[in-house]
Amino acid sequence: MSTLCVSGGRVLLPDHDVVRADVLVDRDEGTILAVDEDLDGDETLDADGCLVLPGLVNAHTHAAMTLLRGIADDKPLDAWLQEDIWPVEAALTSEDVRAGTELAAVEMIRSGTTAFADMYFEVDAVVDAVERAGLRARVGHGVVTVGKDDDAAREDASESIRAAERFDGAADGRVSTAFMPHSLTTVDPDVLREYTAEAREAGVPVHFHANETTDEVDPILDEHDERPLAWAREQGLLEPEDFLAHGVHTDASEHDLLAETGAGVVHCPASNMKLASGMAPVQDMREAGVTVALGTDGAASNNDLDVFDEMRDAAMLGKLAADDASAVPADAVVEMATQGGADVLSIDSGRIEAGANADLAVLDLDAAHLTPQHDLVSHLAYAATGSDVRHTVCDGQVLMRDRELTTLDAASVRERASEHAQALVDRA
Amino acid sequence: MSTLCVSGGRVLLPDHDVVRADVLVDRDEGTILAVDEDLDGDETLDADGCLVLPGLVNAHTHAAMTLLRGIADDKPLDAWLQEDIWPVEAALTSEDVRAGTELAAVEMIRSGTTAFADMYFEVDAVVDAVERAGLRARVGHGVVTVGKDDDAAREDASESIRAAERFDGAADGRVSTAFMPHSLTTVDPDVLREYTAEAREAGVPVHFHANETTDEVDPILDEHDERPLAWAREQGLLEPEDFLAHGVHTDASEHDLLAETGAGVVHCPASNMKLASGMAPVQDMREAGVTVALGTDGAASNNDLDVFDEMRDAAMLGKLAADDASAVPADAVVEMATQGGADVLSIDSGRIEAGANADLAVLDLDAAHLTPQHDLVSHLAYAATGSDVRHTVCDGQVLMRDRELTTLDAASVRERASEHAQALVDRA
Repeated sequence: MSTLCVSGGRVLLPDHDVVRADVLVDRDEGTILAVDEDLDGDETLDADGCLVLPGLVNAHTHAAMTLLRGIADDKPLDAWLQEDIWPVEAALTSEDVRAGTELAAVEMIRSGTTAFADMYFEVDAVVDAVERAGLRARVGHGVVTVGKDDDAAREDASESIRAAERFDGAADGRVSTAFMPHSLTTVDPDVLREYTAEAREAGVPVHFHANETTDEVDPILDEHDERPLAWAREQGLLEPEDFLAHGVHTDASEHDLLAETGAGVVHCPASNMKLASGMAPVQDMREAGVTVALGTDGAASNNDLDVFDEMRDAAMLGKLAADDASAVPADAVVEMATQGGADVLSIDSGRIEAGANADLAVLDLDAAHLTPQHDLVSHLAYAATGSDVRHTVCDGQVLMRDRELTTLDAASVRERASEHAQALVDRA
Repeated sequence: MSTLCVSGGRVLLPDHDVVRADVLVDRDEGTILAVDEDLDGDETLDADGCLVLPGLVNAHTHAAMTLLRGIADDKPLDAWLQEDIWPVEAALTSEDVRAGTELAAVEMIRSGTTAFADMYFEVDAVVDAVERAGLRARVGHGVVTVGKDDDAAREDASESIRAAERFDGAADGRVSTAFMPHSLTTVDPDVLREYTAEAREAGVPVHFHANETTDEVDPILDEHDERPLAWAREQGLLEPEDFLAHGVHTDASEHDLLAETGAGVVHCPASNMKLASGMAPVQDMREAGVTVALGTDGAASNNDLDVFDEMRDAAMLGKLAADDASAVPADAVVEMATQGGADVLSIDSGRIEAGANADLAVLDLDAAHLTPQHDLVSHLAYAATGSDVRHTVCDGQVLMRDRELTTLDAASVRERASEHAQALVDRA
């Protein structure tokens, strides 16, 4: 057995106590062996003056959209998708997706994210990028049937099932998959129902957008006279491992349904603000017992993949939505970005204790904006930024040491991504 | 004449065009001499791969509150002030304020802020810190008369006038001052009116909080049957150089009044979210012609002093407030953080052109989260963070070069601030 010891730091425990301890990691199994004082390993990662926390989970993104960062800001969701994003995405190649996903991987590793959920296209390229980067991900092919004939719609859904079956367990088990119908209003109901049943047979969960804007709620209310998530349940969605993004316009009946089924919600506060979609009732969801994670959404609607920003945004927007400054406190958003994200992705990460996956971020506290240190959980939520992350570990492997990436060459990834991004704009 | 050349970068011009150019600075006068290709100076600051932008302006803060960062989060404004902040502040010494303001200065320099407005106590210590740091600031003593007898109230207001007179023009002109009544509801109306008249005689403007919560609006509506800013105008406030913080709960009549008088508003989006105060109608203000700047507010309600965060928050919250994703675009928040802030502080900074103050931030674009570079103004608003700032220049002097501070010793400032912060908590 080969071991890694993250030593000399303070450690954020699952109950959010912070203790001085070392974290011993089994590099072969990729798991945490022990959290205790005075441990030794074959290799040491210096965490002196640092806070060791679970690697953050970005539970909803479209990683390769980093190529479109800044391409079209300050537009509402519908116009933005139809005028700017979809035309460019229609021209995307597998190599574009590889370049964009690698750029996203560099950004995530540098900001302490170790696992993410990705809904996009060209899943083979996504999986390649995840494997090379050393990250953990639940990936899938997004299905949109609007504007397609029945054959094309079914081919798109089949592609999503095939990708989910083919790549589940890839990258030494770091890759898992899902069937990913884009949303309840952009996929034909028959296709949604039939292929969701196929996903059940294939043993993969379903990830989709829901209730992001009122335009995704009203048509279902009008046509079926029921709330979107109740209707989704009837189509076979909302099994325990399923998870939906956004849930901005959800009501108490839907929160109860989510709590009862165990399906998770990925809250994307920055995207919801930037597209003026609205304020998700996160405090209500949490009080109803819903599992809530955080996601950046794609870089075109954020515009970065820094989950520290997302924690801060979630705490702040949650207070505004609840009209209560005590709502969605620091502790809650840290939980959402770690254990909540791991639960939603159905991975055994998000907590630092023996037996869990060795997915870690080591945050350098030697910074003016993290001084004084009255409360480190507060700092994680409100003051820290991804740039404060010193080391990143996933599956027991060091992906970044002292701000230097070990798996990807950041400079060449950036250069390649810039070339692909420029070519995409030139083609569109 | 001694010159500094910021060379090899791209430069953000006042119209937000970005051009490749050098910026030549007169170090003796502290002003920009030229913006052009192939310039040479006595000293060079390498901006290769960087964007040179105006130093950011943090137009409303309580700098020394860095000592209270994380001390009490997730509470509403009134309870937070009365239970947590005011008891600790009552015990503040001049040395505490010096330590906290120096910590704030380190944080601001490291995140590209070159000018700020500070409302606090122990103004001599604030001025000392500003002078040592090399920053530019408009400072003042905050007056609260609630709970004081008439003599004590007048003594507090006199102190604010005395400090404004004494320190105006300090630090080689980098320090300017204002009379700073805390708010329209925490200062006795007679005291407010009389000492505002004194401020006019002393030739200093007035800075105050207004319309931050409905609790600051309703009592004035009830008692005087008019909007708070109309009432403020009758007390002698809202001269052209005056500026107020927040303005969350303002209506169209107040926006017109602000536009007509020329008084500025400092929008503090993070603080307004964190304290659940509400959403300022920033798009409406801008359309009415109000000069809007950005402020972090104190670090206890933010919890950092990074104006890049504030730009992102302002753009996102502005869209939500307007229910329109095209509201408060990237361009607007960059303007608010630069020229808007300079206008509100009545300083000739916030723009890169010959004649203006040489207050600059040099942003390193060599980062995954700033790749690709479709739109650098978008990146400033949505993707950059204070940690991306490579050099900071104020009044022609380099305050940070390659992330190393030149005026303050960051490590000893952090250590001293930590000691003072701990002692404060122990005393309270």
